[in-house]
Order: sequence, then structure tokens, then C-alpha cells
Amino acid sequence: MPPLPRIDPDRLWRRQSEMDAIGATPGGGVHRLALGADDIEAHRRLADWAAARGWTVALDDIGNMFLRRAGSDPALPPVASGSHTDSQPMAGRFDGMSGVLAAFEALETIDDAGIATRHPLEVAIWNNEEGPRFAPACMGSAVYAGMRTLAEMRATADADGITMGACVDDLKAALPDAGRRELGAPFAAFIESHIEQGVTLEGNGNIIGVVTGMQGYRRFRVEVTGADAHSGTTPRARRKDAFVAATEMAVALRAAFIDDTDTMRFTIGRFEVEPGGISVVPGRVVFVIDLRHPSAAALQVEGDRVAAICAGLKGPCEVTITPHSASDPMEFPEAMRARLAAAATARGYPNQPIFSGAGHDARHIARLGPAGMIFIPCKDGISHNEAESAEKEHCAAAAQVIADVLIELAGPV
Amino acid sequence: MPPLPRIDPDRLWRRQSEMDAIGATPGGGVHRLALGADDIEAHRRLADWAAARGWTVALDDIGNMFLRRAGSDPALPPVASGSHTDSQPMAGRFDGMSGVLAAFEALETIDDAGIATRHPLEVAIWNNEEGPRFAPACMGSAVYAGMRTLAEMRATADADGITMGACVDDLKAALPDAGRRELGAPFAAFIESHIEQGVTLEGNGNIIGVVTGMQGYRRFRVEVTGADAHSGTTPRARRKDAFVAATEMAVALRAAFIDDTDTMRFTIGRFEVEPGGISVVPGRVVFVIDLRHPSAAALQVEGDRVAAICAGLKGPCEVTITPHSASDPMEFPEAMRARLAAAATARGYPNQPIFSGAGHDARHIARLGPAGMIFIPCKDGISHNEAESAEKEHCAAAAQVIADVLIELAGPV
Repeated sequence: MPPLPRIDPDRLWRRQSEMDAIGATPGGGVHRLALGADDIEAHRRLADWAAARGWTVALDDIGNMFLRRAGSDPALPPVASGSHTDSQPMAGRFDGMSGVLAAFEALETIDDAGIATRHPLEVAIWNNEEGPRFAPACMGSAVYAGMRTLAEMRATADADGITMGACVDDLKAALPDAGRRELGAPFAAFIESHIEQGVTLEGNGNIIGVVTGMQGYRRFRVEVTGADAHSGTTPRARRKDAFVAATEMAVALRAAFIDDTDTMRFTIGRFEVEPGGISVVPGRVVFVIDLRHPSAAALQVEGDRVAAICAGLKGPCEVTITPHSASDPMEFPEAMRARLAAAATARGYPNQPIFSGAGHDARHIARLGPAGMIFIPCKDGISHNEAESAEKEHCAAAAQVIADVLIELAGPV
Repeated sequence: MPPLPRIDPDRLWRRQSEMDAIGATPGGGVHRLALGADDIEAHRRLADWAAARGWTVALDDIGNMFLRRAGSDPALPPVASGSHTDSQPMAGRFDGMSGVLAAFEALETIDDAGIATRHPLEVAIWNNEEGPRFAPACMGSAVYAGMRTLAEMRATADADGITMGACVDDLKAALPDAGRRELGAPFAAFIESHIEQGVTLEGNGNIIGVVTGMQGYRRFRVEVTGADAHSGTTPRARRKDAFVAATEMAVALRAAFIDDTDTMRFTIGRFEVEPGGISVVPGRVVFVIDLRHPSAAALQVEGDRVAAICAGLKGPCEVTITPHSASDPMEFPEAMRARLAAAATARGYPNQPIFSGAGHDARHIARLGPAGMIFIPCKDGISHNEAESAEKEHCAAAAQVIADVLIELAGPV
């Protein structure tokens, strides 16, 4: 076999810049919510690039997109890499997109080198990984892997009442030449590249993290109901102040989930106070607890404490706690991790095993075939933020590892 | 002088029901934000009733409305009563409207009795008393009394960018026959009737409260700035969680302002967490503190503690505290209080002096002439809530006291 081809860091960086302009924010980030106009434009741009290469474009019924370079044996399932193009609100340029472009660069490099493979090669773009417009997150990969039903997910609506189904139809209309992909079609392998969104690689001076697995999460919706009242006339003793009860709960929950190793991730990111008037004692607060841990047992035990802590602090209000969503911790197969580490080492990229604090589409796709994932550093670990930043050479290293491993996995002819 | 005429409780209650239907909510309350379509409709209805009586209708440039029954001496300033037609969001039917209708019923009763007065009699409807759509509250009376400038208040905008000025123009367009009233024109006297929004009258079995004065308030806007971060990947030690800092502040402020007599009113009614994603550590929280007390000295001392308490709990975040608005405590003149108490007693209504926890338009109008205020009970003290409720006979008692006192003050010919 000839030496593995080198990817083109300049071309990759140019494509990154081109994508950064789609939904660019004044603060240097992107705002590209799932299947909004900008996200559809990003899909269209990728499809155009693929078409220029002579690759095929296919969409499934939940809006996942697949760019395929044919293999020599059409009966074989594809070897794929990819991530997502959508972003959190006013967020960063690399979350998702860097993984999509690493995969695209890998296929271009293989194409330019004239390497034929037995398996088809694919870039997969999973729809709605982020979830702020349409819940839940990782929707496209979850439906593809059979973890969520198509009908239910197409019926989810955004704050304006627009359904995911309607958005997928918009995407299809924007890509009239795209073929159709069946949900759940297997992969020979799937590799995702992503920014770390933490500081481990940066702190250790490593360029590639080989992801061992992902922590699980349990989320709870807490609704505190008191009574709206006039802030000027209602004495403390007569108030049923939902904000008072909810803040007592938030502080107590936070204290309860502090661990010495700082392993547990406890977050309240959504906390809505109603009616919200300056002179109205709030009668209702709804908040969501996001509890994450690598250990399924710890998640079970700690998550089970939520209800009692909230109930003990409801004061004169009522409180209802309902499970919002949950996911078990998972691990990627050892063989794939070893292969990815070997590929990084062969290129001289300092690398390490790393655990993922975030959920990613590879979690779901791992159910359909051997999957793996790599991380690259992102500056100061900042993500879901316009200031998110990644180095050109680190993005290039990810694309190189992906290219090298795809060739191995797809079986050069 | 002939005996004072009796008001018509059935007519008054019918008018209340008619107004309840304008902006009615499924929960039995009203949602009639200042100069929205429903509030303008309420103004139009009142103007129609006035026109049917041959009274004149006038609007000033901040949207206050005046329904005038002429007196025998056109050179004299009016003797007026009234309140407001706007409501808090999803709020009660009696807050404001009961005072407007008591004044209207008083004028109708005097009209039906054929009593001529030297001073003109007026029903005053003060615009935007509540303030949730356009800040600040008591806007119409504040501009009328010269406490706020017309240009600045007309430029205030609601959440959709619609200005108060545009809304006032809408109101004028809806009432093309209305005359124009100069801001700041004096009153010979002004009496406001309102529901108590507390439990003192109910607890004491009294029907009329003669308001001695109003507590003052100081409001502060607190902005806590951290950094948005990924909830799955960011360890506690690296977070700048604005929600954590803001809730610590809220709990500490609450503890700091607890007094044994339950006199201080400390409320956080607006508390906004951004960006609000379930999986995003919040980078920004903005909340407003509403601190009220009958003593100006207590307000000064206690309000001055806010900044240090917040600064001490900002943790890794930044905090900015800015004054939002303030009002000194005030007292109504003794002579007016004595007159109102005597009128209630003459009708056999059990009555008492009472302090107002809430601010009302009479606070501002008291600067332009002798002013007074009465309260009637509201069930369980519930207000700013769809469940707000007042008794027909208590509404009638208020209208009767207003009618009796207006006749005295306006000088029967």
C-alpha cells in the first residue's frame, strides 16, 4: 500500500472560514439553530461541494444528510465520519462544524489521492445535535438509531410553533437533487471528530484525545407553584413566593451535589420566573436540573435525592418534579480506540485517552456499528460561547487522523 | 340641603360586569395591559357612557382621560375621583377598575338627583398605572403632576418596540370626539377609591379604610455577568455561573431584610437567566429588587446595604447594581382623611385608618391639590392575580362615600 496521503490544512481552514460566515455573529461566533435558514444554507453549501466532486447526496426523513463517495463493492455499508452543522444560540464556530469539515477534508484527500475503497465513504451531518430550538438534543442521530420515533420527533415544535417536520421538508426543498436515505441503515464504522469543550488536552499539551466514552445524564423538570401577589401590600408571612422556594431549592441542590473530585456536573441552565413583574410576588417558577456523571450508579443514587431535597424546601408552595430526559453512560469499543490512538501516534500527534463530558451523536450511532470519537483542544475549554476557538493545526490533525483511519477501515482496493 | 342621594349598587355592579368582559381571562380575571386593544376599548366604553350623560371627554398627551360634568362656575378647577383601567398580566378585575366605576357611579348618582355643583365634577382615568408593559408604573399621573417628562415617557417602548406615544395616538384615534386636556391643570380635590390588596380591613371586619399615606420604595437592577459554558464538560471549579452567584445573592438579601415586625417588603419579581439552555451554564442573570417601607430613613439605610451584599457573593462573576426607581413615603392631608372617615361613619360603614403598601396615582395627584384615598376589602388580600375578588356591597360603599364627599367638596349650588 502507498503511503497515506496528507490532508490540506489550508483548504480545510478555508472551508471553515466559509462556514463561519453562515450565521456569523458580531461577537465572532455563529448563531445557526437547527434547520433555520442559515443551517439549511450550510447544508446546501456542503451538498454543492460534494456534487462538485461527483459524490451523491442523500437525506433521511429526520433531516440527516449523507455525502457519499462510492466504494468498489456497492453491497457494503459505508464507513463514515461527521458531526453536525447546527449551533447553540450565539455560540461558537467549531462545535460540530469542525467535525463535519474534518470528515469532508478526509474524503477530499482520499479522492485527490485517487484511492479506491471497497466500502463507500460518507460524511454524515446529523440534524439538530444541539437542541435549543427543538428538544431533545441529538435528535437526528437518535431517530436514525431508533432511540426516538420519527413521527414524534417530526411533530416537535419550536417556540414559534414551527415543527421539525416542516423544517425537514424545507431542507428537502432546498436540496431537490438529494436522494433518499433509509433510517437505521447500518455503518461499517463511524468516527466523529469534535472539539473537547474542556481543558484536559490543552492542559496536558496533547493534540488528539481518543474518547473512551460519554457520561450519562438525568434531567429533572421542577415546577414550583405559589400565588401571584402584590409586592407592596403582601407581608412576608402571607406570601406563597415561588421564587423564594425555588432559590432555596437551587442553593440546597448545589450544595448536595458538590463532590471532592469535581466529577459530578450539576447545572441549572433554565430557570423561568412568572409572571415576571417587578411588583408582583412570583407565583410560578419552572426550572430544569441537568445532572451528569460517568457512573450509572452515581447518577441513580444522586438523581434519586432531587425530589426529597425540593420537597423539603417548598415552604408554603407546591412542587412537582418530573423526569425530563436521561441517558446512560456509554463506552466506545476498545478496538476502535486503539486504532485511533495508533493513527494519531503514527502521525506524531501527542494523544491521550479522554472521557467526554458532553453527549454527541456518536453515542447513538455506536448502536449501529463500531464507532469511535476523537477530540481536539479548544482554547480555555470555552464552548457554547461566541469566544469558542480552535487552532488551524489541531483541526488539520483531526482531519488527518480521520483520513488515515477511514482508508484503513474502508479497505483500499 | 336635601338628603344626600343613594348610589345604585345594581347599576354599579352591572357596569363592573361589563368591564370584566373586556380582556377577560379563562381564570376569571382580566388581562388588560395599558393601552392595548382591550384597555382602549375600556376607555371607549367609559367615554360612550359619559357622552350618553352629556358629559365631556378629554384626553391629555400622556393618555389620561377625564369625563367631566360641568359645574355652575366654569372658572373653578374640578373636584375629581378615579383610578385606572389597565391591569397587570393575567390579573384581577377590581384593581383600578373598581375605583373608576365608583367615581362614575358617584357622578351618575349626583346627575340623577339633579344636584348642581359649583365646581365641575370629573372621573379621572390615569394611564398606565400598573407598568408591566411600559415602565415606570403610575406613568400617566406622574407626567400629569410633572414628576416625569412627557417626551421621555412617550418614548418608552414595550417588548415589541411599540412606544407609549404611539399608543396614546391610538387612544386619541379611537376617541375622535374627545377634547384636549392640558397636563398639570389643578384639581380642587382628588379622591381615589381602590381595593386594599391586603387583609387588614377583612381581618378587622371593616368596609372602608381611610388611607393615611403610602410607603416608599427603592428598586435596584442587579446584573450578574459570568460566562456561558457547556454544562457537560465544564467542571465546577472552572465555571463562572451567573445563576449560582445570583441565587446566592437572592438568598442572602432575603435573609438580610427580614424584620421582626414584617414591615419591610422585599421582593424579587423579575429574575431573567440567559441564555436559558438546559445544557448551558448561564453567563448572565438580571434581576430587580423591590424594597418598600413606610419609613424614608429605613429605606435609605437598608437600601444602601444592597450593593455590598451582592458584591460579597459575586464569586468568579461580575456584578453591577444600578438604581432602577424610587419614591419617598407620603401622607395624605389630615383634613381630607377626617372628611372621608366622617362620610363613611355617617353611612354606617365600619371604617379605620390604613396605610397603603402599594403605590397609587393619588400619590402624584396629591401634589396638585388636596387628595385622599379610600380602600375597600378584597378577599384574602389576593391581588395581581386572577382570583382577586371584591364584594358588591363593598364596591357600593366606596361609590357612596365618593358621591357624598364629591357633593360636599364641589359645593352644591
